[in-house]
Amino acid sequence: MVSRLKDLGSQVYGDLASGKYPYVEIPSRSVSNIQYDKKLKQYVLGPERVKRNAKNTKHLRPFSQLLWIAFFSKHLMMENKTSTLRDIYYSAQAYHVDFEDQAESDEIITELESLVGSAREDLNIYPEERSAIFGNLTIEYNVPGYEGRKLDLTSHPDGVMIGPALTTSSFVKTTAERVIVIEKGALFTRFIEEKVHEKYKAVLIDTAGQAPRSTRYLIRRLRKELGLPIYIFTDADPWGMHIAMVIISGSANAAHITDLTTPDATWAGVWATDIKKYKLPSDPLTEVDIKRLYELRDDPRYTEQIWKDQIDEFLKSRRKSEQEAFARYGLTYIVDKYLPDKLRELG
Amino acid sequence: MVSRLKDLGSQVYGDLASGKYPYVEIPSRSVSNIQYDKKLKQYVLGPERVKRNAKNTKHLRPFSQLLWIAFFSKHLMMENKTSTLRDIYYSAQAYHVDFEDQAESDEIITELESLVGSAREDLNIYPEERSAIFGNLTIEYNVPGYEGRKLDLTSHPDGVMIGPALTTSSFVKTTAERVIVIEKGALFTRFIEEKVHEKYKAVLIDTAGQAPRSTRYLIRRLRKELGLPIYIFTDADPWGMHIAMVIISGSANAAHITDLTTPDATWAGVWATDIKKYKLPSDPLTEVDIKRLYELRDDPRYTEQIWKDQIDEFLKSRRKSEQEAFARYGLTYIVDKYLPDKLRELG
Repeated sequence: MVSRLKDLGSQVYGDLASGKYPYVEIPSRSVSNIQYDKKLKQYVLGPERVKRNAKNTKHLRPFSQLLWIAFFSKHLMMENKTSTLRDIYYSAQAYHVDFEDQAESDEIITELESLVGSAREDLNIYPEERSAIFGNLTIEYNVPGYEGRKLDLTSHPDGVMIGPALTTSSFVKTTAERVIVIEKGALFTRFIEEKVHEKYKAVLIDTAGQAPRSTRYLIRRLRKELGLPIYIFTDADPWGMHIAMVIISGSANAAHITDLTTPDATWAGVWATDIKKYKLPSDPLTEVDIKRLYELRDDPRYTEQIWKDQIDEFLKSRRKSEQEAFARYGLTYIVDKYLPDKLRELG
Repeated sequence: MVSRLKDLGSQVYGDLASGKYPYVEIPSRSVSNIQYDKKLKQYVLGPERVKRNAKNTKHLRPFSQLLWIAFFSKHLMMENKTSTLRDIYYSAQAYHVDFEDQAESDEIITELESLVGSAREDLNIYPEERSAIFGNLTIEYNVPGYEGRKLDLTSHPDGVMIGPALTTSSFVKTTAERVIVIEKGALFTRFIEEKVHEKYKAVLIDTAGQAPRSTRYLIRRLRKELGLPIYIFTDADPWGMHIAMVIISGSANAAHITDLTTPDATWAGVWATDIKKYKLPSDPLTEVDIKRLYELRDDPRYTEQIWKDQIDEFLKSRRKSEQEAFARYGLTYIVDKYLPDKLRELG
């Protein structure tokens, strides 16, 4: 990544040295250029490109901002530091690079992602959200001061935080045979207490709501590098369903990045049909829920039968339910009955 | 705690056996009974008590609900399980105990806290929020399956999650000389990367916003058991100030619990006066910010001079600033300059 940013710099210096106006060409992220790739099962960018040319005075500001972000990110990488979106906004002031607000610097960071085709995490820029992992997997750190040190991911029973150090670690060894991704911390803790990691030989991941991109990247790595099947458990509502979908097929606003998805991960529940099947306590769908379901029905990511069926069932039953609703049958029911049932059903 | 719940049960059984209507007397949490204790530097409950008598048909519902929560919590403790507020709401349905919604079960859990005078965490009931800790401190677990196992809290450079296992662990040994509590994950990560834990011999805690009660309890333990001074760093705005205050003096709605505060912890910044002193990038206070400052000015917890002065300065300058604003002077300025300045200033 550092060499890619250096190339960008060399190109600009080269243009300047030979008396030319420097420019960059960036894959366009406009709606007209975002396409759904059925084979990749995710949104990707089409062939359109936008040109940022220093010759054009209107382009000068975003062009300089982009080069500064590239410069700053290169320094982060060379100094083995990480930064956040917010930090970068403030750091710009030290260099007298003007951003109107954080929205503007976030936008330019996304532009740099698009230019280099990698997620901001590869540029050492992290968001604030934290999720967690637990299970029989040993990792080896690659961050400064920890190189070569290993951690067994069962070493802390509250779960191990997924931050920059974990995201960039290498997988050393595992006895796990699957990954179970969970939307909520409460259930993650329950699964640890009930030893789901042992009983089902599973690595457990708590996304704490919508999975942060670094967590989606980690899930993809567990699939690709260790060949583990991925099962995703969410609430039975359009929002839970979409948490699973974003892990599987990504989001339109990350169409410029192609290594964040896990197309063959499985949404294992809680399905709309599970509400009836398990007689779960449920609530009526709100108007917002229903509007969201109609949106998802028209979304190209939702074309497979399983999704269509579940959307139809939601719209028919007009009910939603939460993962915790299984506690109606006792705290361990979800582990003793629902989980094995599901894993058997999904093969 | 189990024996206290057993006593409660025995008392009720005793009443029933001798043909009397059982009842409980609970310290009242009504506004009229919440008093600010200047010596303890926190809100406490006064002498008023409410009686819940099975004789009164209006009391039957909350009385049964309370006993069920006590019963359920006792089972959690005896089986070494933890639960969440949400889980409990759903679990009640397994026992055909009726709660209208989670607000009602949360309220009864608070009532049980008030009755036994302990936080729900002592009843094995945890919220979902997660914060994190890092530093030269070795803990020993007390949770099942991990008894006697130790963890060095520098073992994971993303920070160690503060969940039930960490909260209930014993402190084994430390080389730390202070605790630095930080409002935001970004700065927590920065401090780890810049080795603040080594340079300043500090245990670092990320509260991730308003500190969850289990984290406040942990901070109190670090103060009481290890004698470490506590420094709290927040954003320079009324909300950051209040995050520090709740760690120091608690909140009115936890007036029924007395072991969650750390009265001699220090709010180390970012102060209103630091905005000018360090020429920090700042934003104008909003109307909501200003309204909040006037509320805090009348709050009995805010009587000491330092708080009064800072509130006055906020109202005078009408500006606020964030911890990340120091990045204006480079990512390490806050560690290299601001932090040592402050620690010197505060002695």
